[in-house]
Amino acid sequence: MAENESNSVVGVFRVQLQWGECDPAGIIFYPTYFRWFDAATWNLFAEAGYDAKRMRSEHRAMPLVAADCQFKHPAEQQDRAEVRSRILRWGGKSFVVGHDVVREDGTLLAQGRETRVWGRYESGPGSPLRGQAISGELKALFRAG
Amino acid sequence: MAENESNSVVGVFRVQLQWGECDPAGIIFYPTYFRWFDAATWNLFAEAGYDAKRMRSEHRAMPLVAADCQFKHPAEQQDRAEVRSRILRWGGKSFVVGHDVVREDGTLLAQGRETRVWGRYESGPGSPLRGQAISGELKALFRAG
Amino acid sequence: MAENESNSVVGVFRVQLQWGECDPAGIIFYPTYFRWFDAATWNLFAEAGYDAKRMRSEHRAMPLVAADCQFKHPAEQQDRAEVRSRILRWGGKSFVVGHDVVREDGTLLAQGRETRVWGRYESGPGSPLRGQAISGELKALFRAG
Amino acid sequence: MAENESNSVVGVFRVQLQWGECDPAGIIFYPTYFRWFDAATWNLFAEAGYDAKRMRSEHRAMPLVAADCQFKHPAEQQDRAEVRSRILRWGGKSFVVGHDVVREDGTLLAQGRETRVWGRYESGPGSPLRGQAISGELKALFRAG
Repeated sequence: MAENESNSVVGVFRVQLQWGECDPAGIIFYPTYFRWFDAATWNLFAEAGYDAKRMRSEHRAMPLVAADCQFKHPAEQQDRAEVRSRILRWGGKSFVVGHDVVREDGTLLAQGRETRVWGRYESGPGSPLRGQAISGELKALFRAG
Repeated sequence: MAENESNSVVGVFRVQLQWGECDPAGIIFYPTYFRWFDAATWNLFAEAGYDAKRMRSEHRAMPLVAADCQFKHPAEQQDRAEVRSRILRWGGKSFVVGHDVVREDGTLLAQGRETRVWGRYESGPGSPLRGQAISGELKALFRAG
Repeated sequence: MAENESNSVVGVFRVQLQWGECDPAGIIFYPTYFRWFDAATWNLFAEAGYDAKRMRSEHRAMPLVAADCQFKHPAEQQDRAEVRSRILRWGGKSFVVGHDVVREDGTLLAQGRETRVWGRYESGPGSPLRGQAISGELKALFRAG
Repeated sequence: MAENESNSVVGVFRVQLQWGECDPAGIIFYPTYFRWFDAATWNLFAEAGYDAKRMRSEHRAMPLVAADCQFKHPAEQQDRAEVRSRILRWGGKSFVVGHDVVREDGTLLAQGRETRVWGRYESGPGSPLRGQAISGELKALFRAG
């Protein structure tokens, strides 16, 4: 995992693996981790002051540039875990979120990253999205301590 | 299944059951059928002249009122099937779509219905949706023969 | 909703609607309700003593015969709700689960039912499933009061 | 993308982006790409002689070690694309699959990789999975020309 250069707060998003999120091998179907990452990023932003209603009313979105995940340990139905998310790096108009998925017994299940653009629709959902400069005010919302 | 009062054309939407759409029992995770029904309804409307681009540009959507399904036979990974969809009934502002899921060997896997509103956003996606009167012109697009 | 003939306990399964569970209309993609119903039924059985580990070790599963849902009110990203689930009826080898999805402000979002078989694999996952007679002991686990 | 050291055949898996695979921004919800990658890998193996039925009867599975994706261009509902998949590298017990998602007009939508183990259940689904040595015979099935 890239070093945490941003001294970020850590968002905690709780999950429990469901029957329909497992495959015929009886373990997690791996795209489920990326669904969790997406939800965990929205949760991190909500905790920092940008919840879904504000994002909508300000015509913001966070489209993806890249995502990756390493799968460390298989997860089974009913397992409870936390997705612990933080800002790893701020760019000019983009940022990187790191996610650790930790089962309640402390086992690291998976570790991943998303690179996203801080975007705004020109005129509401459906219209083109443009990257926005990331301000010092925005970064400050995510600073730990 | 309600009688087909509408003499509807039949849309055919082809599917193949994937690994990640099966559960630890090794058969289809049942909400997959409803994902197929939704896609099959969009396909039926596209074939009748209302494809996704037209729906978007005219600010239309088809929100659900009700849905049901009977599961007749288990589907396994790699099974190929057709979802055969038709308008079962037109109401004033709503309509019922019937779906038969038929495996390539002719086995009926599932049979379901969706009741939907013919809706329009007041001012684009995100704004309130209102039901629209279903015109004779709309119905004519789906008439067989 | 069919009458509750079974005097059932009520399982509570908490959900929060995520970005990726909404569609371009900005509201819940309807198969999400059925994913919630499935998870809520597993939760109800876990609370009654049949959790996923026990189901697995006893080679049990609960395949679907039918499912339906009425959609009462649109749900938006970030909405929190409870799925309140109970046994509506016990048959010889099958049973009906009723689900109410209630938003935290008390609004009923959706109401549905699943009809399931109480099944057992002949010899573990992947082998044929057979319906099992529903015993008085099983029913007693779900009796309220 | 890592160089293709394996001179691999290319599997083609056709997709069309559905309404329910898009998010409130009106574009693809990104975990959908990983669902496609998984299905495309199964398709590649089926074309090489290891279809789902054979995988099941031989108690094989292909658990993930890592996955990544770069998102090049937003996809919209109704877009048709091909996922073009090939073996990028064979290891002792693992292998890397590369996936290009190309829209029908030739636009590269996304590009990703999966690292997987060539695994076998000790005694059928549900029992532990062990990595298997990748034989020359297996590699030969995927060699182009």
